[in-house]
Amino acid sequence: MLKGKHVVFIGGDARQLEVIKNCIEGKARVSLIGFDNLQSPFSGAVNRELTENLLKTTDILILPILGTDEEGFVDSIFTTKKLVLTERHIASLPHHVTIFSGIAKSYLKDLSEKYSIRLVELLKRDDVAIYNSIPTVEGALMMAIQNTNITIHGSTCAVLGLGRVGMTLGRTLTALGAQVKMGVHRPDQAARAEEMGLKAFFTKDIHDQVDDVELLFNTVPSLIVTEEVLNRMSYNTVIIDLASKPGGVDFLHAEKRGIKALLAPSLPGIVASKSAGRILAQTIIRLVAEQHEEGSNR
Amino acid sequence: MLKGKHVVFIGGDARQLEVIKNCIEGKARVSLIGFDNLQSPFSGAVNRELTENLLKTTDILILPILGTDEEGFVDSIFTTKKLVLTERHIASLPHHVTIFSGIAKSYLKDLSEKYSIRLVELLKRDDVAIYNSIPTVEGALMMAIQNTNITIHGSTCAVLGLGRVGMTLGRTLTALGAQVKMGVHRPDQAARAEEMGLKAFFTKDIHDQVDDVELLFNTVPSLIVTEEVLNRMSYNTVIIDLASKPGGVDFLHAEKRGIKALLAPSLPGIVASKSAGRILAQTIIRLVAEQHEEGSNR
Repeated sequence: MLKGKHVVFIGGDARQLEVIKNCIEGKARVSLIGFDNLQSPFSGAVNRELTENLLKTTDILILPILGTDEEGFVDSIFTTKKLVLTERHIASLPHHVTIFSGIAKSYLKDLSEKYSIRLVELLKRDDVAIYNSIPTVEGALMMAIQNTNITIHGSTCAVLGLGRVGMTLGRTLTALGAQVKMGVHRPDQAARAEEMGLKAFFTKDIHDQVDDVELLFNTVPSLIVTEEVLNRMSYNTVIIDLASKPGGVDFLHAEKRGIKALLAPSLPGIVASKSAGRILAQTIIRLVAEQHEEGSNR
Repeated sequence: MLKGKHVVFIGGDARQLEVIKNCIEGKARVSLIGFDNLQSPFSGAVNRELTENLLKTTDILILPILGTDEEGFVDSIFTTKKLVLTERHIASLPHHVTIFSGIAKSYLKDLSEKYSIRLVELLKRDDVAIYNSIPTVEGALMMAIQNTNITIHGSTCAVLGLGRVGMTLGRTLTALGAQVKMGVHRPDQAARAEEMGLKAFFTKDIHDQVDDVELLFNTVPSLIVTEEVLNRMSYNTVIIDLASKPGGVDFLHAEKRGIKALLAPSLPGIVASKSAGRILAQTIIRLVAEQHEEGSNR
């Protein structure tokens, strides 16, 4: 479905390389902006400058995970040049273009809307979030193994939140031989947790659940592991917070109590850049194909 | 069963602390030699010097994982003093004593035999090796997650050797969502591997099995990943060798081919010293109890 399409990449990290590779394999015409320091350049892609003339001919524009900042700046680890996507750049894009970005700040959202350009925030999609939970959970396992003196096997773990990451985590920890308690918000989630062989509790009762926990994983993106909860925990507990910044843990109080609490960085790009890139690539390709079908059916 | 027994520890690392704790909890009389720099000393244990007089009253002597070297030297991370277990020390032990050591060099074996003293090499026991396979495999997972840019989930793995570690590894990788090929030596092992849902192959046919492997774990303690095998592998493959030194991989040729090959250190003490110590402690306590029962049945 990418065949013959002009796909333009602006900046990115190791994940983007896998997306580029997939686009080349899909026989797209690939232009790379901000990849001039690439150690092994792609045959089948051309390095270009960021100009309105180039953007005029673009069918698909692919930005990095973080998109642009609020001034249009695009980050790239493969160039020392400063890349800025200006309003004039956006204005020069043809109407049928689709912009793919991991997330989008209001700068990018507003300009896309102003010029009626389709913008897809990949990380906001459920499918991408579920696929991404796999490298996230493997990264969390790595952190748990590194930061405890016990095995996950046989340990008592708590997972807070049965969302996309929480479900993968609960299943994986159980498979490794841990005893897993799952903190949930709703009765249907409690039912699902029990079905998965986990012990469910409601997060409002978290205080009564943490005294025997050796490893606590949080996925809830609001303050849930409060001072009061921390006071009920053993100082041997290790906390790994997977929720997006600032996380759901009172880190200051954890430090005061001598509890090791770690705010995980964005793990997919760190522990499995190739797999994480493949997740993005396959989603982009599927979405382009769907769009193509919609177009043909009209 | 340890109640009232005089248990003497000479040296060790973090694992030994868990054994000491278990002995104190079991109400043994505990003497520690070579633990004078311990950050949080145990209440219920006494620091002593290594003397014949002390050893005369010993019921159970516990040495570190590596026992002694060929000159009787005992390693301890908790002292700066040099600990040497001499022939005169061994000679002073009472006849009913049992020495527990992870492994024993001929120095220790010969002297134990000469003075008719029971010596248990814990790491040579099947039960200990199986329990230890759990932290070993979690350490191997950690290394795999750290050293690849793909997720274990969805990857093609090969495990060489369906022994105590190989079986735990095959089961765990499968549980994490990997496709696992298991290299076995015997038809009964092939049957077991298939029963576990793994794809079995005979190690003599290894050359035909490695071209699509992304992660290879070796547990076979003799050269099996030869130059010829490495030449059939993708340079993207990551090899983790869990066999004891010098491992089963031609590391020099792997480097020449640009294949990342890692010889894993002894992982249980590194990734899970507390769990690894507990494994030793529980085995020692069980063996002492068995000995006690045998004694009563006489």
